[in-house]
Amino acid sequence: MDKILRIDVGAEGGPKARVTPVGEYAGLGGRAMTSGMVYNEVPPSCHPLGEDNKLVIAPGLLSGSAAAMSGRISVGCKSPLTGGIKEANAGGQPAQVLARLGYAAIVMEGKPKDDTLYKVFINKDGVKITKANEYKMLGNYDLIDKIKEEYGDKVACISIGQAGEMKMLASSIACTDMEMRPTRHAGRGGVGAVMGSKHIKVIVLDDTGTKMRQPKDPGKFKAANKEWVDGLKKNPTTGQGLPAFGTNVLTNIINEAGGYPAYNFTTGRFKGCEAISGETEVEIEKARGGLATHGCHRGCVIQCSGIYNDKDGNYLTKQPEYETVWAHGGNCGINDLDAIAMLDRLDDDYGLDTIEMGATIGVVMEAGLAEFGDAKAAVELVHEVGKGSPLGRILGSGAAVAGKAFGVERVPVVKGQAMPAYDPRAVQGIGVTYATSTMGADHTAGYAVATNIMKVGGNVDPLSPEGQIVLSRNLQITTAAIDSLGTCLFVAFAIMDQPETFQALLDMCNAFLGTNLTADDVTELGKSILKKEREFNMKAGLTSKQDRLPDYFKKESLEPHNITFQVKDEDLDQVFNW
Amino acid sequence: MDKILRIDVGAEGGPKARVTPVGEYAGLGGRAMTSGMVYNEVPPSCHPLGEDNKLVIAPGLLSGSAAAMSGRISVGCKSPLTGGIKEANAGGQPAQVLARLGYAAIVMEGKPKDDTLYKVFINKDGVKITKANEYKMLGNYDLIDKIKEEYGDKVACISIGQAGEMKMLASSIACTDMEMRPTRHAGRGGVGAVMGSKHIKVIVLDDTGTKMRQPKDPGKFKAANKEWVDGLKKNPTTGQGLPAFGTNVLTNIINEAGGYPAYNFTTGRFKGCEAISGETEVEIEKARGGLATHGCHRGCVIQCSGIYNDKDGNYLTKQPEYETVWAHGGNCGINDLDAIAMLDRLDDDYGLDTIEMGATIGVVMEAGLAEFGDAKAAVELVHEVGKGSPLGRILGSGAAVAGKAFGVERVPVVKGQAMPAYDPRAVQGIGVTYATSTMGADHTAGYAVATNIMKVGGNVDPLSPEGQIVLSRNLQITTAAIDSLGTCLFVAFAIMDQPETFQALLDMCNAFLGTNLTADDVTELGKSILKKEREFNMKAGLTSKQDRLPDYFKKESLEPHNITFQVKDEDLDQVFNW
Repeated sequence: MDKILRIDVGAEGGPKARVTPVGEYAGLGGRAMTSGMVYNEVPPSCHPLGEDNKLVIAPGLLSGSAAAMSGRISVGCKSPLTGGIKEANAGGQPAQVLARLGYAAIVMEGKPKDDTLYKVFINKDGVKITKANEYKMLGNYDLIDKIKEEYGDKVACISIGQAGEMKMLASSIACTDMEMRPTRHAGRGGVGAVMGSKHIKVIVLDDTGTKMRQPKDPGKFKAANKEWVDGLKKNPTTGQGLPAFGTNVLTNIINEAGGYPAYNFTTGRFKGCEAISGETEVEIEKARGGLATHGCHRGCVIQCSGIYNDKDGNYLTKQPEYETVWAHGGNCGINDLDAIAMLDRLDDDYGLDTIEMGATIGVVMEAGLAEFGDAKAAVELVHEVGKGSPLGRILGSGAAVAGKAFGVERVPVVKGQAMPAYDPRAVQGIGVTYATSTMGADHTAGYAVATNIMKVGGNVDPLSPEGQIVLSRNLQITTAAIDSLGTCLFVAFAIMDQPETFQALLDMCNAFLGTNLTADDVTELGKSILKKEREFNMKAGLTSKQDRLPDYFKKESLEPHNITFQVKDEDLDQVFNW
Repeated sequence: MDKILRIDVGAEGGPKARVTPVGEYAGLGGRAMTSGMVYNEVPPSCHPLGEDNKLVIAPGLLSGSAAAMSGRISVGCKSPLTGGIKEANAGGQPAQVLARLGYAAIVMEGKPKDDTLYKVFINKDGVKITKANEYKMLGNYDLIDKIKEEYGDKVACISIGQAGEMKMLASSIACTDMEMRPTRHAGRGGVGAVMGSKHIKVIVLDDTGTKMRQPKDPGKFKAANKEWVDGLKKNPTTGQGLPAFGTNVLTNIINEAGGYPAYNFTTGRFKGCEAISGETEVEIEKARGGLATHGCHRGCVIQCSGIYNDKDGNYLTKQPEYETVWAHGGNCGINDLDAIAMLDRLDDDYGLDTIEMGATIGVVMEAGLAEFGDAKAAVELVHEVGKGSPLGRILGSGAAVAGKAFGVERVPVVKGQAMPAYDPRAVQGIGVTYATSTMGADHTAGYAVATNIMKVGGNVDPLSPEGQIVLSRNLQITTAAIDSLGTCLFVAFAIMDQPETFQALLDMCNAFLGTNLTADDVTELGKSILKKEREFNMKAGLTSKQDRLPDYFKKESLEPHNITFQVKDEDLDQVFNW
């Protein structure tokens, strides 16, 4: 990872690749790389779809190595959805492959001269950029089928569907998984639109002939990695809960906690939960010959994913995540797992953020475009997005724009980005993260749910404002660091409660990188990332006034706890005051 | 004007009227009243369509008196379009009638309990609020016809069309003119949506049995008013240019100056100008039995308006203003005055801001939804808005949202509001006003065009950044004061170059109000209004970073002068640093 690939999409005669030494960005991975580069190189006032924005794709610091769980990739830019900085990350194979190919980052920059679409092929011999107009307006699944015909099924792809080509604010960037399916998405913030604005349809990565990245101290690395894996295996969440039921194990847990935002955040419990729970999902997967336990990338030991087959036993989609099941399920009053799986498939195919799409459909259901619970209508609405009809253009622009277009007041967004599957009134810590994250509403930016509800890393009452600021702050700092390592965020369950496992992660990093990082260094790394992100946002025109939940969360009580969001504005302003 | 009418639309059993003494708001009119009340009573973080926003309608301080040109009415609220404070003002009859009825303001507050639509009738005996579901989704013209059937043609109306009922961000509030046609609109900022959110379709004002408001010193007032009228008559713009050709006299002037933003702000001159100029418009009006010189309210001596008949000699619309002719004309490459007049009529009927609509159509033409120059397509697009189709919902949300929905980079907005008919690159003073006005892009907030192009009140080179900050600042201050008097802004042409006419206005105010206002007091009034507006905006989350033109005005040169916007960001930040 000693080089950076820069693609100037505005060059005369079509995009030009330029490989440069990693230089000033040496030692950065994942989110530290993407946010660092966006901070340095993108003018905060620029139009997100214009010449001056850059799309940065970076594997984590440990990606491409034998380190377990190191397969996350970060995608950064100025977000067309939030107007601020964005790091969206994804699993799948590209992080490992890109890192093995030696690239610390791919940067797409400039503005295309015409409407030609391109593909980028990268292998050990270099970079080849060719016209790809034959891929125009292909969904991710059809696209990857064509890539397989040409390049075989051992490559890894980073691609956009129709939504990204149409520069929709809810569009994602797809990464292929181990079966070379486009199921792992850098979903949030409209990153697909930025790739679409650069006219790059797909990046094909072929690591044939490359080797795994080697640690500086192989002996120590191997030992630490073993300790690391053991720690993940013995933790009840990463070792048992997630492998057995996937993330959707949360449906019953969050519903029981009264923090499941049903019917567009109208109530905290959903009667249809049983039918769409992780437990039910796993039964269906097993009964239909799918998989209930499966990883999204090489080197994953948690295996939180699965394969969801249709009624005829044919592959439909990967196991939909909890947030997806909520967004297209309870949030829209839908209790039909097959419909939800189909919506997940469609989102992956068109290249859309499942959270944003589910939240948006919830908003337009509130506007009366369809009845809550009408799964057929929801499927049709997502098809509208894929077609790019005017209605699809509204929905593909996300919940905030849809709310404006239909005059809806109850729109669950922060900084223009839709809230995920945890009601901030019943899980006040995640409310602090939603409000203050540099990313807009984002559960992954500081997953206070773990401590509020699962009592991981302590016990902070979810219904009280007490302690939530410190909790969210610490989690946001740690998360920024984890997002830089390329490590799956779920390792947090283990490292928050098992000091020896956190130490193993540190030891593994140090052995791999030849560094002497301490826990304090990790904290400093996280802080430095957040500081840059926040400064970018301020320069882009965001202020502490945007570090707020929509008013109605402070005014409307949520059943069953009859509670509003209690954290005071002045306390929210202390999150970054460390 | 010693009382305020407050209508609580959320009261049990339907809206309740409450008449209170003017109290702390005594001595305020127009914009000083609306912005003062919004500043005091509306939480800046509230949702513009929610319970906590208020719609304030206030006649000017001199409205309802014999003072010439005193018929402007101000409409204020938190804007759903800009997210900041809004004062939109309009001519027509309501200011005079409302003031004669003794109301310093009407305030609509609260949140409706159900979807019943209401009408409000106000006469000397009081206020009557009744259900009006029979008016649902009527256009302003049909609505006013029904009002005439019931109340005769001597009343004045304030109403919304379909767009306001649908809570569209580009919706306006219509005021009837002297012929009781709904042609005078508080157009900007989506004020119609706020009235729509309060479920008030129309306010009918009947001043039968009331008297003109009387001055404190009748003798002095009469003398000053005569001097005032003489001053307006002898000024070449207010005495000759505007009466003869209306505001559309500007088409040739601005085009000649190279500041006419054609084809969605792509070039500064439009080849089709001759066909849509004020000179041509007047010829058509005269030839078809319309009127080329006409006032919008009682007491107007400038008479800048007219009546535009169709080819068969039947009334089509009032004389479209310069900004409307530009928005639906040159900005969309359209050179057909009949089509533009039809678009003006449709906007008035559906209740839409003509500037926002024209700018939006320009943006979607750039996105490829229709060809530039296709007048038929433009008419169809506005009909989509009236129908509330998904496409209409996008367009009715204004240029910023349409740009997001269709992934367009070149969207000419500031703070979400579309720029009017003067390119800020060729008229840099108006660029400063667009950028820094508390209202979003708004030519009326500080009409630097007068000095930059017409050399009124001095001579500041339109192509140089020099002097534009001071120019815009002074104009913004003076304008805020004029908007509070209820005086038509066009009086500025006379008072900027004729000290004796400015003095006559002051004398008239003092004689009417029994005050001793000096020119400095007027400046202080303007400053105090701007200060409150700006503070509201800051609390609502706007910052100096939103006091900027879109990036492309700084990067793309405009023909024929080959110039970009030259005023520096740090200078823009000095506008309110007085």
